[in-house]
Amino acid sequence: MCAVVGVINSKEASKTAYYGLFSMQHRGQEASGISVSNNHHITTLKKQGLVTDVFSKEDIINLKGDMAIGHNRYSTAGNDSVRDAQPVTANYALGEIAIVHNGNLVNKNEVRERLIDEGAIFQSNMDTENILHLIARSKKEHLQERIVEAVSQIVGAYCLLIMSRSKIFALRDRYGVRPLSIGVLPDGGYIIASETCAFDLVGASFLRDVAPGEMIIFEEGCKEFKSVQLFKEQDPRICAFEYIYFARPDSIVEGKNVYTTRVELGKTLAKKSKIEADFVVPVPDSGVPAALGYARQSGIPFEMAIVRNHYVGRTFIEPTQEMRDLKVKLKLNPMSSVLDGKKIVVIDDSIVRGTTSKKIVALLRQAGAKEIHMRIAAPEIKYPDLYGIDTPTVAELISANKSCEEVREYIGADSLEFLSVDELTHSLGDERKYSLVSFDGNYFID
Amino acid sequence: MCAVVGVINSKEASKTAYYGLFSMQHRGQEASGISVSNNHHITTLKKQGLVTDVFSKEDIINLKGDMAIGHNRYSTAGNDSVRDAQPVTANYALGEIAIVHNGNLVNKNEVRERLIDEGAIFQSNMDTENILHLIARSKKEHLQERIVEAVSQIVGAYCLLIMSRSKIFALRDRYGVRPLSIGVLPDGGYIIASETCAFDLVGASFLRDVAPGEMIIFEEGCKEFKSVQLFKEQDPRICAFEYIYFARPDSIVEGKNVYTTRVELGKTLAKKSKIEADFVVPVPDSGVPAALGYARQSGIPFEMAIVRNHYVGRTFIEPTQEMRDLKVKLKLNPMSSVLDGKKIVVIDDSIVRGTTSKKIVALLRQAGAKEIHMRIAAPEIKYPDLYGIDTPTVAELISANKSCEEVREYIGADSLEFLSVDELTHSLGDERKYSLVSFDGNYFID
Amino acid sequence: MCAVVGVINSKEASKTAYYGLFSMQHRGQEASGISVSNNHHITTLKKQGLVTDVFSKEDIINLKGDMAIGHNRYSTAGNDSVRDAQPVTANYALGEIAIVHNGNLVNKNEVRERLIDEGAIFQSNMDTENILHLIARSKKEHLQERIVEAVSQIVGAYCLLIMSRSKIFALRDRYGVRPLSIGVLPDGGYIIASETCAFDLVGASFLRDVAPGEMIIFEEGCKEFKSVQLFKEQDPRICAFEYIYFARPDSIVEGKNVYTTRVELGKTLAKKSKIEADFVVPVPDSGVPAALGYARQSGIPFEMAIVRNHYVGRTFIEPTQEMRDLKVKLKLNPMSSVLDGKKIVVIDDSIVRGTTSKKIVALLRQAGAKEIHMRIAAPEIKYPDLYGIDTPTVAELISANKSCEEVREYIGADSLEFLSVDELTHSLGDERKYSLVSFDGNYFID
Amino acid sequence: MCAVVGVINSKEASKTAYYGLFSMQHRGQEASGISVSNNHHITTLKKQGLVTDVFSKEDIINLKGDMAIGHNRYSTAGNDSVRDAQPVTANYALGEIAIVHNGNLVNKNEVRERLIDEGAIFQSNMDTENILHLIARSKKEHLQERIVEAVSQIVGAYCLLIMSRSKIFALRDRYGVRPLSIGVLPDGGYIIASETCAFDLVGASFLRDVAPGEMIIFEEGCKEFKSVQLFKEQDPRICAFEYIYFARPDSIVEGKNVYTTRVELGKTLAKKSKIEADFVVPVPDSGVPAALGYARQSGIPFEMAIVRNHYVGRTFIEPTQEMRDLKVKLKLNPMSSVLDGKKIVVIDDSIVRGTTSKKIVALLRQAGAKEIHMRIAAPEIKYPDLYGIDTPTVAELISANKSCEEVREYIGADSLEFLSVDELTHSLGDERKYSLVSFDGNYFID
Repeated sequence: MCAVVGVINSKEASKTAYYGLFSMQHRGQEASGISVSNNHHITTLKKQGLVTDVFSKEDIINLKGDMAIGHNRYSTAGNDSVRDAQPVTANYALGEIAIVHNGNLVNKNEVRERLIDEGAIFQSNMDTENILHLIARSKKEHLQERIVEAVSQIVGAYCLLIMSRSKIFALRDRYGVRPLSIGVLPDGGYIIASETCAFDLVGASFLRDVAPGEMIIFEEGCKEFKSVQLFKEQDPRICAFEYIYFARPDSIVEGKNVYTTRVELGKTLAKKSKIEADFVVPVPDSGVPAALGYARQSGIPFEMAIVRNHYVGRTFIEPTQEMRDLKVKLKLNPMSSVLDGKKIVVIDDSIVRGTTSKKIVALLRQAGAKEIHMRIAAPEIKYPDLYGIDTPTVAELISANKSCEEVREYIGADSLEFLSVDELTHSLGDERKYSLVSFDGNYFID
Repeated sequence: MCAVVGVINSKEASKTAYYGLFSMQHRGQEASGISVSNNHHITTLKKQGLVTDVFSKEDIINLKGDMAIGHNRYSTAGNDSVRDAQPVTANYALGEIAIVHNGNLVNKNEVRERLIDEGAIFQSNMDTENILHLIARSKKEHLQERIVEAVSQIVGAYCLLIMSRSKIFALRDRYGVRPLSIGVLPDGGYIIASETCAFDLVGASFLRDVAPGEMIIFEEGCKEFKSVQLFKEQDPRICAFEYIYFARPDSIVEGKNVYTTRVELGKTLAKKSKIEADFVVPVPDSGVPAALGYARQSGIPFEMAIVRNHYVGRTFIEPTQEMRDLKVKLKLNPMSSVLDGKKIVVIDDSIVRGTTSKKIVALLRQAGAKEIHMRIAAPEIKYPDLYGIDTPTVAELISANKSCEEVREYIGADSLEFLSVDELTHSLGDERKYSLVSFDGNYFID
Repeated sequence: MCAVVGVINSKEASKTAYYGLFSMQHRGQEASGISVSNNHHITTLKKQGLVTDVFSKEDIINLKGDMAIGHNRYSTAGNDSVRDAQPVTANYALGEIAIVHNGNLVNKNEVRERLIDEGAIFQSNMDTENILHLIARSKKEHLQERIVEAVSQIVGAYCLLIMSRSKIFALRDRYGVRPLSIGVLPDGGYIIASETCAFDLVGASFLRDVAPGEMIIFEEGCKEFKSVQLFKEQDPRICAFEYIYFARPDSIVEGKNVYTTRVELGKTLAKKSKIEADFVVPVPDSGVPAALGYARQSGIPFEMAIVRNHYVGRTFIEPTQEMRDLKVKLKLNPMSSVLDGKKIVVIDDSIVRGTTSKKIVALLRQAGAKEIHMRIAAPEIKYPDLYGIDTPTVAELISANKSCEEVREYIGADSLEFLSVDELTHSLGDERKYSLVSFDGNYFID
Repeated sequence: MCAVVGVINSKEASKTAYYGLFSMQHRGQEASGISVSNNHHITTLKKQGLVTDVFSKEDIINLKGDMAIGHNRYSTAGNDSVRDAQPVTANYALGEIAIVHNGNLVNKNEVRERLIDEGAIFQSNMDTENILHLIARSKKEHLQERIVEAVSQIVGAYCLLIMSRSKIFALRDRYGVRPLSIGVLPDGGYIIASETCAFDLVGASFLRDVAPGEMIIFEEGCKEFKSVQLFKEQDPRICAFEYIYFARPDSIVEGKNVYTTRVELGKTLAKKSKIEADFVVPVPDSGVPAALGYARQSGIPFEMAIVRNHYVGRTFIEPTQEMRDLKVKLKLNPMSSVLDGKKIVVIDDSIVRGTTSKKIVALLRQAGAKEIHMRIAAPEIKYPDLYGIDTPTVAELISANKSCEEVREYIGADSLEFLSVDELTHSLGDERKYSLVSFDGNYFID
């Protein structure tokens, strides 16, 4: 997952990058970093923590320059939060360079092994370091050519921002799996970001998406940017998970508003089968739009009968035995005064391991719900995503190991339905293709 | 505002108090503290910050005892966050004592002046220190008698928890302005809390509210508690603001679920006047239930067209001139893809100064909303609350200085309506009285 | 122990107080605090930690005013480092007040009990809070009279600085047990401090000591100060420990340079008995001056054969079994290349429990010392000091329980000698009396 | 400068490394780090700050393994304290590796440029990263061969500890400029350290020094270690500064106790010229041994007339104009009661820029010293050291630009003498050569 942001030709570029990262905090809460260039030197600050904790006011003031790139890192099992923060920076043959990356390289192990065989040293576990090495080892004279050579050797889903002292290169893989958009700032500079919600906060207007396989070159002092199509655009496949739960509802992903898309998914769910129920109840916050769509389509009233506590901190104290299920309860509290004796449809965005759903159903039963009909605004997740979404192994994915009926039994619902893959793509719009590997196992890259 | 919690006859009382405070974080984010008694000695830890920041796992383990009281402090202009954290503790003639307090003493200045004349020293600005002094100066033999004597001298709205080494006294003022409820823990101990949402998290079941004017005495090792009616219960008046926006929606205040009550307020709003509109849009999160009620009553579709960012941190970097209105925008982002060209009804819980509403209306207009009909699920706030809600001075309260039409003009909406005081009380239920001082200026205490 | 400092009629009084406290860090490392008055309001900052950790540059700038008092707190067993930091501040009948205190009240329990009986509350364990209460409870019209009334009720060894919005009162008990001196700052303001080393750092010149039983009144804007003799000066007795180890060697205590005095104590030691030895070795740093005196008198060469590591931090990791005696070794390392096969005289300033001396002797033996003659530049400590020096209970004082020969055996030295009380007082100068309670048990106060 | 430590075949290797670093804190206070290997994986913790601040008890427990290397970093102008902490770790063709380094590579720029031309990326400014790259790029099959190949390409003064999962390689440059010694731990494991004072603290016994040009290979589980002579030992030249001021007095450098050596330097100084003086006064702490030697030789009494404050913290508040010279005064306070009217010989270990000496002389004059004869226990520093001691540029070195008489005038002393280079080497022992580049400009490497 992760978020990337770039800013060029704008005063106080670090401040704009900071706000951009702040608005994309949902894409990664583990670490954050910003590199700025003042055309002579690249300065970087990166640390563990939320954006507002990583950067003080003074830090942002000290990151002087009219160019910046930034990154929010998502927590994944293997990584070292201190060492693996981005941007990754280095000195190499052409001077200073900084890179941020969102996505996953499918051939990273081969590339890494080859580089190591050739004598490279790796100081982190990040894919990004592969790309740095490939650029540094290229014999080409200009950075642009080196980048072209480097990305020709990597395979995967990625968005990359590469900053030299005077340029920012923005790249998207040939399938366009991860989103990347360009906006125009009030002062005429450009902002590049994973999600358009970053534009709204800083008053930027959406210009266009970076196309799949495209490399955009922004240069310090140039009002115009250049575009190079690195790969023939074929079958672009934006990741369906961006719509399902990853992007913020107010972002526009590939021309489609995420919130509205989720409402549609809920409507499609409602069309699948008719249930007699007193309420439609979302699992907040991500289930809310689909639940609204379900309610609207089915005519069953919508109730926010599960209350979410937004104060959940980083570290938390272990519950006693008597307080089992506390971890879910710390966030979600179903109201028995609303639910007692009721038949309800519960809408969630997905089921991964099934453990959280099981706890939610149990909490709803404790709160008195008489019938619980779980509806999931996505298909069954049967395969690990390898293109940048952190899904667990096959062994942990409940739908990879159990039928829908078995999952229903496990979580304890009275009924359970998922969207089919066709229903999903149909709701998203048949006019284009999507990355659906978690659902259909069609690993189209390699 | 603030939150209080007490735990007695329960193992790991500090852990239960911690979870209770965590679930009531919305009532105060400035400072937090817990005192425990192991029957020999009272130990206290209190600090600035959110509950999860104030207490480490080790801290909670070190706060050993089967009795505890705790407090979350709301930030108010005059106070010193380090010095004015609660519980307030002292040694006095009968030994150790700790007090937490939610509310406001109307006669605190007179009491303080009298105490100072008599030679008392004050180490903070808290009302609570007055009560400590009154207890310490009483000549009565037993703490219970001293408390009775002390509270006979104070006038105001308050909930008090007073802990000695072996007892907890829970008191509520004669009008019952601030809420205080008793729950039973899974291990048979008791929990006393400002809101019942604290019970849900720790698996406690609601027993009953502390009655207005009642003092409950819990004793270490006693399964039963005693009740003393300190003041004749007359005209109890729970604060209407608890229903309007202060309490968590999943709490039960004086027998009424807060969420359901807010849905009712929205319905009442919808009955006032008929509007042609495309959507009902809540100002999240507090406007959601009333917006649902409005939508249900009016038949106009409900849309979450304003997206809230929950990551807003403590300290934040000043926006540049070009990023005015950023403070509201950091939290709230109206979606133009949903709003563009639409007529909308916007539901908020109250208007205090009018500045936030003005910015929300402006952001909605920027997002393309064609008509904006603002509906407020509360009456106009014309008077400062003196009973424990931190409202600004009369000069700052927009409705104290402008007519509804003038407010509408100021905030830039196409229409504006508030609930009348009668509509409010009718929606809340005519069977009882409410503290409505902010709306009607009826300062019923003194 | 502890250190106090006061500054009046000097720009940036907080900065001068800060440097004063810094130079007196050896008198207390647990907590530090400064109160300033800008003649309207007293502002205080106090915290756990060393002076350089407690105050940031910004803190000192924000403590604005031309009057200040400050305090370094010594760590003692019973106290709570957060709550018991000084200055202690309060609002009372005449307004704001701040107090710092160095010493010990002998009748504090009686005073505290009486005050508690009268209804006072105590929020700390500090003697200082007694004095605050006595001042607050006085019926006198002016602060000066109230202070006189208050100190007439307390018995003990103390130096007090009391600051109102426009005055600083500096008091010393009738025996003058703890030191307190007045200096003149370069800009004409005054500084009052426990030790004259504070004057050196800020460029102040020594004016005179506050006399035993004297109260000095400094007033904002007044070039002159007033003096009131509160108690008839009788038998002043400065604490001998200030010379023995407590004061910094560069301080002048009651007209005598501490370093020179310690050299004299060493000379006296050398006169007691003649030893054949290769070197005189000090236990650094406090044993150095006496060892120099011993070497000079005896003609035996002085060697710094024990090296001290000054980086010892606050928290430290437990040694394994194989690393016993590590705590002393972390600080002190005897050099075997110097000591191997040698006969040495080791000079230390005192023996309290004997455990450290035992470890030092063992380390010296390991380093190859053939004969170890321990000489202590003070008499045997047989009684607890009750006048402000933190000595352990009688049971823990080795010389209270063992003869000199038994102590020698316990610590493992080849010979051991202390100064006699007469030798001590003779070396310090027979012209005046000293507080010698730890040595002779003559508790002259009460 | 910096300190390195290695531990192998010892339980709790990280704890031993920690104590070793603690005892060598004087060699570098900016950053500290430890890598441990549990034979499967190398884990590293490094941070800015003193050893006791960098590592918590829990940290040391979590660094599990029976092999460890560690480093203290000295603060130098160009470096980035966060990024440039050591050990430097990487994954390369043969697995995991960690390196620590004390010294300076003379040809680092050439090596770095060549590596960068070949496509290497540099993530720091440290010499150590060069060595890592050279090892990684070697085509040899075994790490040992790769290290040999790597060090054949570097020129300079260095001590290196290189840890793989199961081995530690300890290397010293062919001249042996920086010290490196081997000790045997109580449990039979080995410790390698820059200074032998590290052995004393952990109870290790000195075995031998690593020879100039030698590589020692320690292997997990092997009681014996192997030695390979990489370079023909020719003209070993230990850095004279280790004796003059850098090493701890209790360390044994190349067979010579540092303290005793300094005493000798003082004696040599005393023989140069006869002065009539009342006292010999050291600039503490580093001038103490030479002053003792001077006093012993000359018969002039030794006095600790300048008192040092050891509490100087990291960040400090700017003095006002009226408090000039405060920076030196914060550390050093000359006692006027000892110095007033006296003729003194002042002994310091070296003069670099001359600014500190000037301030010390001024402070001594203020304290009343009538005659000040400055004696320096080292020759004039006329050339920058390029072999690992952080000396300033030629322009800043006062003795590179002024004659001894001009320096005397600048610092304001009545007389000034340095040791000659011959006197220095003679005092250190004529049996071997020394690195004396700062004094004679004989850059013997390259």
